[in-house]
Amino acid sequence: MNVSPIANPLLAAVAPSPIAETKGWVLGRQFPADKPLIDLAQAVPGHPPPAELREHLAGVLRDPTKHGYTPIMGIAELRDTYAAHQSAFYGATIAAHEVGITAGCNQAFCLAMMALAKPGDQVILPRPHYFNHDMWLRMLGIEPVSLDFRPGSGAVPDAEDAAALITERTRAIVLVTPNNPTGAVYPPDTIAAFYRLAQRRGIALVLDETYKDFLPSGIRPHTLFDDPDWKRTVVHLYSFSKVFALTGYRGGAVTCAAPLMAEIEKAMDCVSICPPRLAQEAALYGLRHLQGWARGNTEALARRAGLFRDGLARSNRWRLVSLGAYFAYVEHPYDGRPSAEVSKWLADVHNLLTIPGSMFGAGQDRFIRFAFANVGDAMVPPIFDRLEQAVA
Amino acid sequence: MNVSPIANPLLAAVAPSPIAETKGWVLGRQFPADKPLIDLAQAVPGHPPPAELREHLAGVLRDPTKHGYTPIMGIAELRDTYAAHQSAFYGATIAAHEVGITAGCNQAFCLAMMALAKPGDQVILPRPHYFNHDMWLRMLGIEPVSLDFRPGSGAVPDAEDAAALITERTRAIVLVTPNNPTGAVYPPDTIAAFYRLAQRRGIALVLDETYKDFLPSGIRPHTLFDDPDWKRTVVHLYSFSKVFALTGYRGGAVTCAAPLMAEIEKAMDCVSICPPRLAQEAALYGLRHLQGWARGNTEALARRAGLFRDGLARSNRWRLVSLGAYFAYVEHPYDGRPSAEVSKWLADVHNLLTIPGSMFGAGQDRFIRFAFANVGDAMVPPIFDRLEQAVA
Repeated sequence: MNVSPIANPLLAAVAPSPIAETKGWVLGRQFPADKPLIDLAQAVPGHPPPAELREHLAGVLRDPTKHGYTPIMGIAELRDTYAAHQSAFYGATIAAHEVGITAGCNQAFCLAMMALAKPGDQVILPRPHYFNHDMWLRMLGIEPVSLDFRPGSGAVPDAEDAAALITERTRAIVLVTPNNPTGAVYPPDTIAAFYRLAQRRGIALVLDETYKDFLPSGIRPHTLFDDPDWKRTVVHLYSFSKVFALTGYRGGAVTCAAPLMAEIEKAMDCVSICPPRLAQEAALYGLRHLQGWARGNTEALARRAGLFRDGLARSNRWRLVSLGAYFAYVEHPYDGRPSAEVSKWLADVHNLLTIPGSMFGAGQDRFIRFAFANVGDAMVPPIFDRLEQAVA
Repeated sequence: MNVSPIANPLLAAVAPSPIAETKGWVLGRQFPADKPLIDLAQAVPGHPPPAELREHLAGVLRDPTKHGYTPIMGIAELRDTYAAHQSAFYGATIAAHEVGITAGCNQAFCLAMMALAKPGDQVILPRPHYFNHDMWLRMLGIEPVSLDFRPGSGAVPDAEDAAALITERTRAIVLVTPNNPTGAVYPPDTIAAFYRLAQRRGIALVLDETYKDFLPSGIRPHTLFDDPDWKRTVVHLYSFSKVFALTGYRGGAVTCAAPLMAEIEKAMDCVSICPPRLAQEAALYGLRHLQGWARGNTEALARRAGLFRDGLARSNRWRLVSLGAYFAYVEHPYDGRPSAEVSKWLADVHNLLTIPGSMFGAGQDRFIRFAFANVGDAMVPPIFDRLEQAVA
C-alpha cells in the first residue's frame, strides 16, 4: 500500500537540487578552528543588503497602503525604473510594458519556458547547465537538448554546434552569461551568433543575465537590443537578488515582446498572483540609490576572483576551465574519478564544500564548481593550501 | 512575420484572470460622491496587517542574518509552529516535515498539482471553480473535469456525482472549502464522503482551506486528519494572506505525506528557490501572536456576511445560492442574459464591480459572485439599493 499519493512520474524522475545534497555532506559535522568549513557550494552574496535599504523598507512597513497585492507583473514604478535601467545599460529603448517583475530569476525562467514550450517540445541547453533549468524543463515534459562546449573554448558554446541540434520540435535556446556554473562570460560575437541563429530558425533566444552587474564597469555585454526586431526572438531574464544582496526577498525580471508577456502574465497569476511587495520596493530602491554600492561589491568580487585565478595558476594539478565574478569551473587532477566522489571527499577530508560537475549534466565528471562569492578574501589562500595537499 | 516568439498553445488557449478584465471595466472612470464605485470583485482584506506585526518586521529588517535564502520549504521554526497550529486546529497529529511553506496558496496548488499529475491526466474540479485552478491545470496539459453542484444543494458538490467522473486518467479531486467563488462551507459529511471516494479509488484529495479561519469559532471543519492513513490521500492547502492580511507578502502552505513533499520541494526549488523570508517571519508572528486579532476580524466579517444575507433575503429578484465569510454566489434576475453582460452593466450603470459566473466555468451564466470582505459595513445597504433599482 502506498504511504503517499502517487507522484507525477515526470517529477519523480528528476533528481533534487544538488545544493541540498551537498549540504547534507557536512550537516551536523563539527569543524576544527584551524580547518573550518569553507562553503563554496551556493552562489549567494556574503553580506546583507545595506543598512540604508533596510531603513527604507522599515519606512515602507509603516505605510498602511503597501501590504496588499500589486499588479501581476509588478508595480508600475518599478517596471518604469527597470525598463529605464535596461535601456541605459544596453544603450537601447526598452518600454515599461516589455518588462515584468517576478519572484526571482528562477521564476522568470519557469514562466518564460512555460510561455514558449509545451510538453514534447525541445529546448537547447548548453552543458554544464544550471540545474534548476534542466529540472524545470523535465518536470514540464519539455526535452532539454544538451549543447557541449568544445575543448579549449573556456566553456563557451558555439552557435554552429547549436544549429546542428535544432529540429522542428525546438522552441528555444537558453544562454546564461556570465554563466552559472562555469563563470564564463560569453563574448558579444558569440551571443550575436546565437541570436542570428535563433532569429533565422524562428525560435526564441532566452538570455539569462543574472550576473550582468558583476562584469567590469562600462562593458556592454552584447548589442542584441540595438536590433529593433529583438522582440521577435529575445527573452531576457534578470535577478535583483545578487546585485542588491536580496536573495531572501525574491525579486527578478523578464524582458520580452508584449504578446509573450501576456502569456507569462497568465502563468505568473497562477504561480504567485504577484511578486512580493517588499521585494519590489527593495529592487526599486536599489535601482535608484544603490548602483554605487553595488559597483563597490563588484570590485571586491573582482579582486577575489583575481586571487582565485592566481591561486589556480600556481597549481600544476587543478586546471582552470573558466572563471567569472561568482564561479570558477575547474578540472580536477584525479583522472577517471567521478566528480561526485572527488567533491564529497573534499568535503569529508578537506572541509571544502563544492559542487561536482556531474550535477550540472552528463559528461562533466572531470569538473568541480567553486562558488567563491560568499567567501572572504582571507579564506582564499587556505582553499589552495588544502587543494594542493589533497591526494586522493 | 511574428512580432513575438511563438507562444505555447496551451497557454495561448487559456483566458487571462477575470480580475484584470473586470478591473478594466472601471479603469479610468470617475465616480460621483453620491454613487461611488463599490468593488466586490477581488477577495482581499480591507485593512493592512496590524501595527504590531509591522513593528516586528521592522525589527527583523535590522537583523543582518534575515535577508538570505531560507530552506526550500521554509524556515524550521515556521514549519514547527504551523504544524502545531494545524494539529491543534484539527485535533490531530501533523509533523513539521509534513508541512511546507510556499509563496502563497496559489503556489501551493501549482506545486501540488505538478507533483500529482502529468500532461494528459485528469483532475476533478467542482464547478464553479476558482479560475486560477482551472487555468493552471490547462497550462500544464492536465484536463480539468468539471463536477457540477445539484440544484438546491447550496453549491455543495456530491461525492456520488464525482465517482461517476473518475477514469483511469484521474489523479485527484480538488475541494475548496469554505469555497471560492461560492462561499459555501462544505459539511463535514460531504468532505468525508469525498475522502472515502478518493481513498477507495487511489487518487488524491486536494483540500484548499484558505478561508478556514473565517469559520465560526470552535467549528472543526472535518475529521480527515483523525485517520492515521490521511497521508495516503490528503493534500491540504492553506494561505496566511487572508487571516493575517498579508496578501502582498506571499505566504501559504501545503500539508501532505513526506514522499509527496519531496516532489513538491523539487518544483518549489525551481519556481521560487524558497518562500520570501519576510512572508515567513510575518506568518510566524501571526501564528504566535495574532490569533485574537484574527478572531476579531472574523467576527466583523461574519456581521458583514449577515448584513449581506439579510439584504438578499429582502430581495424578491436576486436569489442567494450560497454565502460564506468572503463571498456570496447569487442568481441574477435577468433570465437568459449572460452573466458577463449583467456584471458589466452593474459596473457601467450602478458602479458595482462584481465577477460574472461565466468566469468560473461553463454553465454559470445565471450567477454573479459578490466578494464583500473588503467593503465596509456602511456600504452594504447601498449595494442592495442599487441592485433593487437595477432594471436591465
